[in-house]
Amino acid sequence: METVTTKQEVRNRVKEWRKQGLSIGLVPTMGFLHEGHESLIRRSAAENDRTVVSIFVNPMQFGKNEDLETYPRDFQRDKKSCEQAGADLIFHPSPEEMYPPRFYSYVDMDTITEGLCGSGRPGHFRGVCTVVSKLFHIAAPDRAYFGQKDAQQLAVIKKMVRDLDFDLEVVGCPTVREADGLAKSSRNTYLSEEERKASVILHKALARAETLLHQGEKDPETIKNEMMRMIRSEPLAQIDYIELVDGENLQPAAVLEKPALIAAAVKLGKTRLIDNYMWE
Amino acid sequence: METVTTKQEVRNRVKEWRKQGLSIGLVPTMGFLHEGHESLIRRSAAENDRTVVSIFVNPMQFGKNEDLETYPRDFQRDKKSCEQAGADLIFHPSPEEMYPPRFYSYVDMDTITEGLCGSGRPGHFRGVCTVVSKLFHIAAPDRAYFGQKDAQQLAVIKKMVRDLDFDLEVVGCPTVREADGLAKSSRNTYLSEEERKASVILHKALARAETLLHQGEKDPETIKNEMMRMIRSEPLAQIDYIELVDGENLQPAAVLEKPALIAAAVKLGKTRLIDNYMWE
Repeated sequence: METVTTKQEVRNRVKEWRKQGLSIGLVPTMGFLHEGHESLIRRSAAENDRTVVSIFVNPMQFGKNEDLETYPRDFQRDKKSCEQAGADLIFHPSPEEMYPPRFYSYVDMDTITEGLCGSGRPGHFRGVCTVVSKLFHIAAPDRAYFGQKDAQQLAVIKKMVRDLDFDLEVVGCPTVREADGLAKSSRNTYLSEEERKASVILHKALARAETLLHQGEKDPETIKNEMMRMIRSEPLAQIDYIELVDGENLQPAAVLEKPALIAAAVKLGKTRLIDNYMWE
Repeated sequence: METVTTKQEVRNRVKEWRKQGLSIGLVPTMGFLHEGHESLIRRSAAENDRTVVSIFVNPMQFGKNEDLETYPRDFQRDKKSCEQAGADLIFHPSPEEMYPPRFYSYVDMDTITEGLCGSGRPGHFRGVCTVVSKLFHIAAPDRAYFGQKDAQQLAVIKKMVRDLDFDLEVVGCPTVREADGLAKSSRNTYLSEEERKASVILHKALARAETLLHQGEKDPETIKNEMMRMIRSEPLAQIDYIELVDGENLQPAAVLEKPALIAAAVKLGKTRLIDNYMWE
């Protein structure tokens, strides 16, 4: 496994591989890798001849008052994770390599980006779409791997690839969880011990929603109210949003039908956690 | 030469060519081809093994009160032009093929798109960047050819390719002109006989600016005033804008230095014509 820091080096490796007729998988990450990322890398390594992992904390997807500066970083540990999970190349660029002076372009989307995380994080998905477009152009993968945990991000990337005719397949992978159900996230390290215990309420509320759905409940308000009741019973948790939307375009659903997405974000102290259940 | 109407057919042809190790040039057009377009196709055919010409009047780059419905079209004549100029494949899609239902994505840019044609045509360059990104993904060219006549479009596409890391070369080609100096344009067919005669003032004013520059004049205001005086002497011509900007980022220049762009748009009756001089 090799680590490179420039776009040109990635292009060179990818072109050598292409000449040999090898297929390429890409796993875009912001580093501080956990088992969720490792499952993406393993999946890519199983489905492609070569796997590129990008590790880049993308400034463009952070808001002014968000945690860009304090976002956790540990490149040496990430390197080991990548190696063990079967990556062939790490792309670990500087912000200057990705955003040279007089950088004016962006990729963005309306409708899908407006609800859920989009409403509280203006410009977030513009940053995601722009950096992912760049990575797609640099690594030219056959397949790109994203976690279902960021359900809106996954839907946005799928839409972007379809709308803009990127010639690649977006593969969504199941959320990896802790023993008690909490979705793995780099931001979980921010939680105090009490917050960590309280955080399980997010998964519990989604599991309850899943049960209601499977029992035939089709009214989004009924499910949302039940989830709100549960999360409010946990004093450390504060609801950011609970949304029940159609699974492709993320528009509010009057009646729940497959595919439907139930997505929620809660704050525990200063830490905002997201999770979801995709009914499909 | 072959004509296809679906993205998949273009991809199939391009992949066959790639397998044979052939290089590919792309000439994106809105059709109603004139000698300007033909010069782009000839240049592409000379520099690449295969040349794809797209003919698509892109709704997304027209404003609400612009000439989308009346934009001139003549596919049979265009086909002959492409064949004679050395194209191998015409991509002639429907609007539905390019913009399927629930299309939400776009590519856009700030700064460069704000002055010149951008200020009078909000959303125009978003439409251009989006459709050109799509065409780049569909045809996967080594080189793409654009006319210098649309100087702002050329600068925008160059910036987009650099910023978003498209792996291709943008080739700008010289403006082709009528005998009296009028830049060739599909919209020239809109001009009445008198307007056609009057239209030469645009080129004359730019030629005068070029002379002043070569005589050492570095003050943008002096050159602009002289151009305004000339164009105002032609009663049928109405100035839309005259701008003297730096040639890469199209920002106003206090003192003219290479590369500098002098760009102007005038209206003759209802027809808006653009032209420019790039000092480099």
